[in-house]
Amino acid sequence: MKSLISSELSVINAGLERFAEPLAARRKPVARCRWQPPAAGDAALGWKLARLVGHPKIEAANKIAYERYLASTPLLAGVETAGAVIPAMQGRKLLLHSGPPISWAEMCGPQKGAVAGAAMLERWADSPEAAARMAENGEIELDACNHHNAVGPMAGVISPSMPLWVVRDAVNGARTFCNFNEGLGKVLRFGAGGPEVLERLRWMGEHLAPVLQKTLAATGPMELKPLMAQALHMGDEVHNRNAAATSLLFRKLAPAALAGNVADEKELAAAFGFIAGNDHFFLNISMAACKLMLNAAAGVPGSSMLTVMARNGVNFGIQLAAFPGRWFQARANYIEGLFFPGFSQADAARDLGDSAITETCGLGGFAMAAAPAIVQFVGGSTDDALRNTLAMKAITLGANSAFTLPMLNFGGAPAGIDARLVVDTGILPIINTGIAHKEAGVGQIGAGLTTAPLPCFTAAVEALYEEVGNAQ
Amino acid sequence: MKSLISSELSVINAGLERFAEPLAARRKPVARCRWQPPAAGDAALGWKLARLVGHPKIEAANKIAYERYLASTPLLAGVETAGAVIPAMQGRKLLLHSGPPISWAEMCGPQKGAVAGAAMLERWADSPEAAARMAENGEIELDACNHHNAVGPMAGVISPSMPLWVVRDAVNGARTFCNFNEGLGKVLRFGAGGPEVLERLRWMGEHLAPVLQKTLAATGPMELKPLMAQALHMGDEVHNRNAAATSLLFRKLAPAALAGNVADEKELAAAFGFIAGNDHFFLNISMAACKLMLNAAAGVPGSSMLTVMARNGVNFGIQLAAFPGRWFQARANYIEGLFFPGFSQADAARDLGDSAITETCGLGGFAMAAAPAIVQFVGGSTDDALRNTLAMKAITLGANSAFTLPMLNFGGAPAGIDARLVVDTGILPIINTGIAHKEAGVGQIGAGLTTAPLPCFTAAVEALYEEVGNAQ
Repeated sequence: MKSLISSELSVINAGLERFAEPLAARRKPVARCRWQPPAAGDAALGWKLARLVGHPKIEAANKIAYERYLASTPLLAGVETAGAVIPAMQGRKLLLHSGPPISWAEMCGPQKGAVAGAAMLERWADSPEAAARMAENGEIELDACNHHNAVGPMAGVISPSMPLWVVRDAVNGARTFCNFNEGLGKVLRFGAGGPEVLERLRWMGEHLAPVLQKTLAATGPMELKPLMAQALHMGDEVHNRNAAATSLLFRKLAPAALAGNVADEKELAAAFGFIAGNDHFFLNISMAACKLMLNAAAGVPGSSMLTVMARNGVNFGIQLAAFPGRWFQARANYIEGLFFPGFSQADAARDLGDSAITETCGLGGFAMAAAPAIVQFVGGSTDDALRNTLAMKAITLGANSAFTLPMLNFGGAPAGIDARLVVDTGILPIINTGIAHKEAGVGQIGAGLTTAPLPCFTAAVEALYEEVGNAQ
Repeated sequence: MKSLISSELSVINAGLERFAEPLAARRKPVARCRWQPPAAGDAALGWKLARLVGHPKIEAANKIAYERYLASTPLLAGVETAGAVIPAMQGRKLLLHSGPPISWAEMCGPQKGAVAGAAMLERWADSPEAAARMAENGEIELDACNHHNAVGPMAGVISPSMPLWVVRDAVNGARTFCNFNEGLGKVLRFGAGGPEVLERLRWMGEHLAPVLQKTLAATGPMELKPLMAQALHMGDEVHNRNAAATSLLFRKLAPAALAGNVADEKELAAAFGFIAGNDHFFLNISMAACKLMLNAAAGVPGSSMLTVMARNGVNFGIQLAAFPGRWFQARANYIEGLFFPGFSQADAARDLGDSAITETCGLGGFAMAAAPAIVQFVGGSTDDALRNTLAMKAITLGANSAFTLPMLNFGGAPAGIDARLVVDTGILPIINTGIAHKEAGVGQIGAGLTTAPLPCFTAAVEALYEEVGNAQ
């Protein structure tokens, strides 16, 4: 060994750390290069990937998709009832849920709980058991939010009577939707469906929604990217931390509601008291805005850019711009993080919800450097937050200059996940998220970080090879 | 030269950089130690300083003063008219101003303009010229805000009819005061006194103040340190950037005003529309809170800790905890920063206002690492913001764990400026501040950074030596 480690030796170590360690222990210069075999060591896939890397059709398609994503200009346009804006809901007992499509039988606990709660909210069933029977026998139909230009956090259940945020693209008029945030504690999105949950949802539909609808009519459509950008300068990553964005929205809406005389003081007090009491209120708007920006990129043949990442608590699904509507799925991961007192990993559901649309858009875990305060909630240090954002540069098409991050000296957030780069580097998209209890109705039990599972990306790369790689 | 720079040479360079440069240019290891002769090279002062460094009476006094500062618990307690809470104003034509005391004849342009405007607000004079004559002949009396437990930003003029924020110490019941923030553009604090300025001030007294007074009666006293701490996690340094603190305050006050039914919707719309439109609205509350925390430390014999830094646009004054009410003054500096289009350094007033009380309290320039977004406004980079905060560690007694900074991995803001350390190191307190036009009424023309001038600190150290050093 000694002869190898002369004072003249300079080493670059690629891959396994353990080859570098004895050198470092002897204070010999060793540059460490993080590397692992591409395609997780799968030689056949690696060969296909090699055909796709630098492929002119994919490069050109990604340029188009990424530019459409950058150009998209989401406006908070209004509030509408789900049944009115989602055509498929008309005349059917249809409930939407987060993640890729899944049957009632396979659903995780919190999502089943939310479906049952929504059926009772709609007065289709008068007990969770009755609702379960209807879902089982197909009387209640189920479909993914993402199939209807919608997104929902956690269980992500949207039912016909629920009010939705409507976000419209100033560029092309396209629209996306997300339900309202209920706050913390016992809430439908964590699978709770008791009387207090339904009562709150009914108040949101009957009282909160009209106030917000009239307020937005008074303000006119509100540009969302500048507001989100400002929140990124105020410690939010607009996924798990929305304290600034909620405050900025509140500061716009409350004076407009007062000046527009949209409701009496009692009604305004209830509506704005509810918003003021919920730091996460903006999350659902952020999600709809992200969905819109990514929808703009969907449908570019040959593009390896991700337009969807979504989880139903069982499976994790992604979509590529090349294949709108086509899911590439794998088992969803668990979340590493901090648990509320009395809970542990044994109580946790797998990764759940459509909120990873924010990461798909370059925010959330990708913009963690904007939100060092979040490490107090999800674990880790300020340096980890910066490191996570920097790591995402390796798997993204560019930096979104509309979303600048102070800790990067106002460089843009890494955005436009390229499925090829994920498979090539083995670096997986980082997601900041809440942890749901695995059983219905218990609620949030913690928060932390997880990643998208690699097999989604290998499957997507295989499909892209079938489409593009063979044709060359 | 060559013989000196052998490969075995390892150099520590203290002081002048130019001795290190030739070594560094030849890639020889040279550790650079920032050093300059203490007391700016004044040998007599250096000798006195040496007697004060580590002096047990001063160390013990500083411990008491610093702990009283840390323990102080400012509550936003209410809104009162200046004439009602500042006893000296009763039955006199007294106007308060920022900085150390100064005569009318010596005042800078913006402060003269603000005095004239306030005299017209009070209807003591019907023109700036008439007001000037009254100030000149002593009919209008002038005194420093700081002599009355008050602070005011920029010109800092407080007149008897103005509404003031009242901040109360939960520990000892002491109170401090600051006027309301008028927003940007033509405002009294920059020396403007035209009809629109007086009209806004009258509306603030007659309409805004009652709404806020009743709203605070509904909320009860509001703890300010947690709100300021939260704002530090949201990109504010609560001096030149108060976007988050204003938003958080707004989110607390607006729902309380609605729920408490404190005024009709039209009145609430005007009041909360005004607050929502002014990112700096919280500044004046921050200043009163800082003044309160530092007042708690004032009056500890022998303490070299600063309790006041204040500027009147001509002179910069500091006070030590050892000598409450005694000013140590020097000529105020100009500000280095960014100018609004059409303005330059030639148009600028010297450093002005009581707002450096925030830096005295460990915030503002001392907490710049919390507010990297501010570098876009005052010039520099995110790294500069961090470097400024770290530099202040060399002249402060500790880190305030109530005010943690994400970029320091949640370490506390450097706080408790020790006059001895400033003279010893030559490192001057950094102040983030606005730049006023040197003539009355033009307004703000930029923002940037400046420092407290060294002679204030050398004078304070001389006085401390007279008091303590001789007695040993």
